[in-house]
Amino acid sequence: MASVTRATSSVCGEFIPPPRLLLGPGPSLVHPRVLQAMGTPLLGHLDPEFLRLMNEIQAMLRRCFRTENRFTIALSGTGSAGMEALLVNLVEPGDAVIVGVTGVFGARMAAVVERCGGRPITVEAPWGRIIEPDDIRLALARSGPVKAVALVHAETSTGARQPLESIGALCRESGALFIVDAVTSLAGLPLEVDAWGIDACYSGTQKCLSCPPGLSPLTLNERALAAMRRRKTPCQSWYLDLSLVADYWEEGTRAYHHTAPISMLYGLREALRLVEEEGLEPRFARHRLQSEALTAGLATLGLSPFAQEGYRLPSLACVTLPAGIDDAAVRASLLRRFQIEIGGGLGPLRGQVWRIGLMGESARRSHVLTLLGALEELGLEQGRLAQPGAALAAAARVYAGQGEPAASPQQSARMSSERENACS
Amino acid sequence: MASVTRATSSVCGEFIPPPRLLLGPGPSLVHPRVLQAMGTPLLGHLDPEFLRLMNEIQAMLRRCFRTENRFTIALSGTGSAGMEALLVNLVEPGDAVIVGVTGVFGARMAAVVERCGGRPITVEAPWGRIIEPDDIRLALARSGPVKAVALVHAETSTGARQPLESIGALCRESGALFIVDAVTSLAGLPLEVDAWGIDACYSGTQKCLSCPPGLSPLTLNERALAAMRRRKTPCQSWYLDLSLVADYWEEGTRAYHHTAPISMLYGLREALRLVEEEGLEPRFARHRLQSEALTAGLATLGLSPFAQEGYRLPSLACVTLPAGIDDAAVRASLLRRFQIEIGGGLGPLRGQVWRIGLMGESARRSHVLTLLGALEELGLEQGRLAQPGAALAAAARVYAGQGEPAASPQQSARMSSERENACS
Repeated sequence: MASVTRATSSVCGEFIPPPRLLLGPGPSLVHPRVLQAMGTPLLGHLDPEFLRLMNEIQAMLRRCFRTENRFTIALSGTGSAGMEALLVNLVEPGDAVIVGVTGVFGARMAAVVERCGGRPITVEAPWGRIIEPDDIRLALARSGPVKAVALVHAETSTGARQPLESIGALCRESGALFIVDAVTSLAGLPLEVDAWGIDACYSGTQKCLSCPPGLSPLTLNERALAAMRRRKTPCQSWYLDLSLVADYWEEGTRAYHHTAPISMLYGLREALRLVEEEGLEPRFARHRLQSEALTAGLATLGLSPFAQEGYRLPSLACVTLPAGIDDAAVRASLLRRFQIEIGGGLGPLRGQVWRIGLMGESARRSHVLTLLGALEELGLEQGRLAQPGAALAAAARVYAGQGEPAASPQQSARMSSERENACS
Repeated sequence: MASVTRATSSVCGEFIPPPRLLLGPGPSLVHPRVLQAMGTPLLGHLDPEFLRLMNEIQAMLRRCFRTENRFTIALSGTGSAGMEALLVNLVEPGDAVIVGVTGVFGARMAAVVERCGGRPITVEAPWGRIIEPDDIRLALARSGPVKAVALVHAETSTGARQPLESIGALCRESGALFIVDAVTSLAGLPLEVDAWGIDACYSGTQKCLSCPPGLSPLTLNERALAAMRRRKTPCQSWYLDLSLVADYWEEGTRAYHHTAPISMLYGLREALRLVEEEGLEPRFARHRLQSEALTAGLATLGLSPFAQEGYRLPSLACVTLPAGIDDAAVRASLLRRFQIEIGGGLGPLRGQVWRIGLMGESARRSHVLTLLGALEELGLEQGRLAQPGAALAAAARVYAGQGEPAASPQQSARMSSERENACS
């Protein structure tokens, strides 16, 4: 007890983290400008200057989500809080919700629907494969009235990209809301909230936005807001009650709800500025290029994409481990000796796959080459490789334009410019 | 649309906040070392070095809460998320919960109990007054089986300090859990989780801990954990389900639940180190001294404490405005001309009181003097004062030991040392 109250030095020393190359499923690397913003002195959460910053964040998030939705905010919680916020506000006890399940995050959505008292109707596909739009059409036809269809755009557990373009129209035909998890896609690959008829969409900051974790950007259109207003029961969460949260974010009211995580919003603003400086299309092209180079390199090491061809995420490569690679041992060596973090498999894929994230600042040529070089060196030491260089050479061919798929002239121009600036 | 995808500069310029002296009800000022920690490069949330940092935070939080509770963590949300987390995990549909309501935050607790399907039994006192332990005893005797008693230790809307010392025993006699909101008290005034028989307690980071907002330190003892394990219904929140959150914080499991807000935890670790370097008792004494100096100065300006005598928070002075002071105009002038933020009244106290926070780094002599000087200058300009100096002189008398209540020798020594270091 005496040691608690004595004015001595803390038992904990200064925290100096080891350098890490973050190439896992998130958090991604954070740009120095964003780190600097995180350390900016605080304003009060009702300070006029802070409210102006919130407006700016909202405007930039709208451009990022490709939406005109007035209700576009950054929720005070991580991506999973965003998932819960949308479901808890849109789903009432007894509501049926069609949930696409092809991995961990679809399953999580179904679990949250249940906790809202809703009735999840799962439409499943084997992990790594997509759900065909016809399966959603069929489920809608068979299910009677459905409150919403909920799909994961980028399934972080499998590396698969779920096509969404035609689902919005199906939902409108049947009066269902269309809810989308864009945690691992926002700002890394095309996502068109308005054009695709998405009624409610959430993301996280620590993926392709390259901001530290802690906020969940989300957006709801008039259709979703009307469903919230029509609720017969109050939202079961007070913290995530978007009608209360809206009173704080809405210009004109700005009523205190809870104290906003000010530093996180500073960081997000700077991360969004970086997105705007680069432009969305060049950013998507950069993610595609780095993903192609990485995939080409990994193939030479026997690591092949897990997800269905044609539907692989540029932001996250999920690759199957060949026999002979000891998952835990290699990942531990990467971390200890090379300071590189990559992700292991989740759930049934544990020990079967690696998940290598190339998101935001992590999607740079220097990082791809560093990882491939490290994997080759480890393979050599462990006797799995005779000599190094094949993986690096395969990546180099992609960068030289010899391994790329045909690209549009505009995309090619973007890629050339990306090539010059790749190694930031 | 073209403007969205063009790789031009962002429409938002660099963010350079105006300097602000934060003397409102939170966020409080943040020490430069904590700001620096917020900008530290990231580790992954499952990195062994990050897990070690979590252990250190837990150990320091236990000392701060004065508890041996193994389950002591920092929840990924603000103080209000901590409130909801405890209630949503401990209260099941139909459960009766006695809630003390003497201001906004007691009322919020009652609202959250209702959203959990619980039945709040409110024990009220006029705002600014405390609830007498006998009223809790009476409520327990009258109410039949009660799941919990929930009280706010430091009511941020009124500046009153609710005594808690004897409530734990009453709760144990009747089999109820004792839940405490310590948002505005933790690390600013004595709080004894174990000694007072508190079963579950939550706080926020942006008050007396002087860390940016975004985390909620919380602690549960074995009695509270047993109640969680005995639940008949699943927790309605997935994000705040403490049995799942525990799997991440528990050494030995460390299972992924959601991505921890890494930078916030960096900041909290440094803020806790500063608490330990100062020591809890000297820190409490510093808060008391600055509060006494401020109160003495404000009294000369006709601003008298709102809360019941003997039960006023050292961390937050809630003072009644005399006739002739225009609440909004003076606060706007303070902010615009002096860069000082203080808080207005909430709910029925809007326009009636000011809430001046002296929490953590905000509780410094230089800040007290700066505020008093600014108030005098404004009073002079607006014709409410004939000449300045009385408020500053009253504060100076307290600092000189002429206006202090009797203190123990140990406390006096602490105060002397504080006096020397006050203007950091």
